[in-house]
Amino acid sequence: MSGYSKTPEPPYYAVIFTSERTEGDKGYGKMADKMVELASKQKGFLGIESARDEESGITVSYWDTLDSIRKWKENATHKVAQEKGKSLWYRNFALRVCKVERQSFFEM
Amino acid sequence: MSGYSKTPEPPYYAVIFTSERTEGDKGYGKMADKMVELASKQKGFLGIESARDEESGITVSYWDTLDSIRKWKENATHKVAQEKGKSLWYRNFALRVCKVERQSFFEM
Repeated sequence: MSGYSKTPEPPYYAVIFTSERTEGDKGYGKMADKMVELASKQKGFLGIESARDEESGITVSYWDTLDSIRKWKENATHKVAQEKGKSLWYRNFALRVCKVERQSFFEM
Repeated sequence: MSGYSKTPEPPYYAVIFTSERTEGDKGYGKMADKMVELASKQKGFLGIESARDEESGITVSYWDTLDSIRKWKENATHKVAQEKGKSLWYRNFALRVCKVERQSFFEM
């Protein structure tokens, strides 16, 4: 990922996904790319930011409403990925749904 | 960072900080460690999660109230770091203040 998402004026919603991976790729990289592509086509998608180091990863996706988040959660292809995440890819994760109340941007 | 923050039941608050660094360390690593240590001693601090790759970094800190976030923003040592961030360390960043409404955790 390069740069932050140019999100609109708040309020809108964020899903913060913090995870630790298991060892080895096991198809994770390909599926992760596919999920970003698929999410960005969903109604109400506002942007996605992601960073990963050896220990852990954080992905934050931004959405217009809680209903858009619910629909993305229920997306059939996404549901398959969620299941594989639990059985194969993640040692642990936290998922938080938030209402963004304020934002500021800085450019050098 | 290892593992996610064991945050209490929502509602509480999250500050999502997404950044792209300039080239070179220029004292960043040391100050970043110091800021995590200092933040974790503030009243109302609930946890911090961070991940960084070559391109970008995401740090999410969790707080009990907006007032605790405001006080941390105004912390004198933190203010020095904020200034150095703009003049030296960050090419760009986005900072978002959010109300966490829902969370779920997964352990393998």
